[in-house]
Amino acid sequence: MATFVEVERADDPRLGDYRDLRDVTLRKHVEAEHGLFLAEGEKVVRRAVEAGYTPRSFLMAPRWLDGLADVLATTDAPCFVLSERLAEEVTGFHVHRGALASLERRPLPSLDDVLAGARSVLVLEEIVDHTNVGAVLRSGAALGFDAVLLAPRCADPLYRRAVKVAMGAVFSLPWTRLPDWYDALPGLASYGFTTVALTLADDAVDLEDAVRGVDKIALVLGSEGHGISPRWQETADRRAIIPMHRGIDSLNVAAASAVACYVASRR
Amino acid sequence: MATFVEVERADDPRLGDYRDLRDVTLRKHVEAEHGLFLAEGEKVVRRAVEAGYTPRSFLMAPRWLDGLADVLATTDAPCFVLSERLAEEVTGFHVHRGALASLERRPLPSLDDVLAGARSVLVLEEIVDHTNVGAVLRSGAALGFDAVLLAPRCADPLYRRAVKVAMGAVFSLPWTRLPDWYDALPGLASYGFTTVALTLADDAVDLEDAVRGVDKIALVLGSEGHGISPRWQETADRRAIIPMHRGIDSLNVAAASAVACYVASRR
Repeated sequence: MATFVEVERADDPRLGDYRDLRDVTLRKHVEAEHGLFLAEGEKVVRRAVEAGYTPRSFLMAPRWLDGLADVLATTDAPCFVLSERLAEEVTGFHVHRGALASLERRPLPSLDDVLAGARSVLVLEEIVDHTNVGAVLRSGAALGFDAVLLAPRCADPLYRRAVKVAMGAVFSLPWTRLPDWYDALPGLASYGFTTVALTLADDAVDLEDAVRGVDKIALVLGSEGHGISPRWQETADRRAIIPMHRGIDSLNVAAASAVACYVASRR
Repeated sequence: MATFVEVERADDPRLGDYRDLRDVTLRKHVEAEHGLFLAEGEKVVRRAVEAGYTPRSFLMAPRWLDGLADVLATTDAPCFVLSERLAEEVTGFHVHRGALASLERRPLPSLDDVLAGARSVLVLEEIVDHTNVGAVLRSGAALGFDAVLLAPRCADPLYRRAVKVAMGAVFSLPWTRLPDWYDALPGLASYGFTTVALTLADDAVDLEDAVRGVDKIALVLGSEGHGISPRWQETADRRAIIPMHRGIDSLNVAAASAVACYVASRR
């Protein structure tokens, strides 16, 4: 059973994990240094714990205690209980879903482990927005993809916003970082994957044609701004486009990834 | 040619259209009262003017003047020129894409006008998030839809965030408000549309089956939280679902709408 700790001061040093959640730079530093990540909202907190992540602590207003009682019963971690006003003062925003948890990150699995048995994987080169990373993971999981690989510069799927938007997919879908950027796509060929890069390049073919008959597929998405790097475009086996109308040249990456996963999963 | 007005004080009363852009409640009030909307960023400002909306004024830092010179040449509206620091003080945030314009709203077109010649339309019941409304419009336009109908409680597509995310689709895609909520879907039948509601209802069929062979389609999307209202679920001709995996029960509405538009446009 968690140890309940009533907190009455926003500057209580035990609340360090939860401080200034809107300050992305600070948070990246704190989370890397302590190897932690935050889950926000009853559902997400529950899923994180059920997925086997070890809680460092919980922080919530009294009215959220009952809903998470069964989760709190499974751990020895402290549960900081405080008013919503005080929670807002600590975190820097109104925690409208009430419950927060700080959990220990785990070592990332190896590429071999993540790819074992996978037939459809997403490869994210440099998606910089955490909301987009979360949305892509959620769509990938929902639409039949088996794993996600992140290039070294892709945003962190365990960052609070990403976790929240992914709605638990970040816990259920296997993912890891690619050890190398330059030869990442040729590397996937050695695992038997055909790499299909979503791009606006002139020689891109209709996505439906690009995925037809492909056995193991690695669907590659680039950054929100400039798309996939030249190196990755060159080294992908195929370049594909979602055909568009009305002079609109691109979808946002969350929409594009959803369509692409849907099409690829029905190949 | 626009009249250039150098501004040196954040409280200059002529900047009322641009004040406190992060205060959604205030902005809704100001924009309704004056019948205005804001465009943000060089591309979006350009598209709004090119689409025929009449500018009330522009606001930008000096370095954005050249890029919009041709647009500013077409109007008599004032262009307020000020430092980026001052722009931030007025608007309440860092205007990183530099240019803003305030434009006059136009009377919404009639349902008859919007539906004339349309074969694929989106119907949005109560999408409350402006980012989602913008993303849905962008995906709809890009993926072959002809028009968008908004229920009375759907968020405003001309709200700044929606306009920005829609990347101009809000200007190029015909849209209007439905005059009535209760009988909106039966009303579309009288225009020859088959209404297909995206829902998690038990009797929902695979979207591909639901759209197959449909001539004129009205694809119906509900709110981010609770989906489509019972009334609309009952009165839709068909209820459809995007099949999902891994126990994930829903996509976010931007992802779902993109997949649904893609599937429906290939029916």
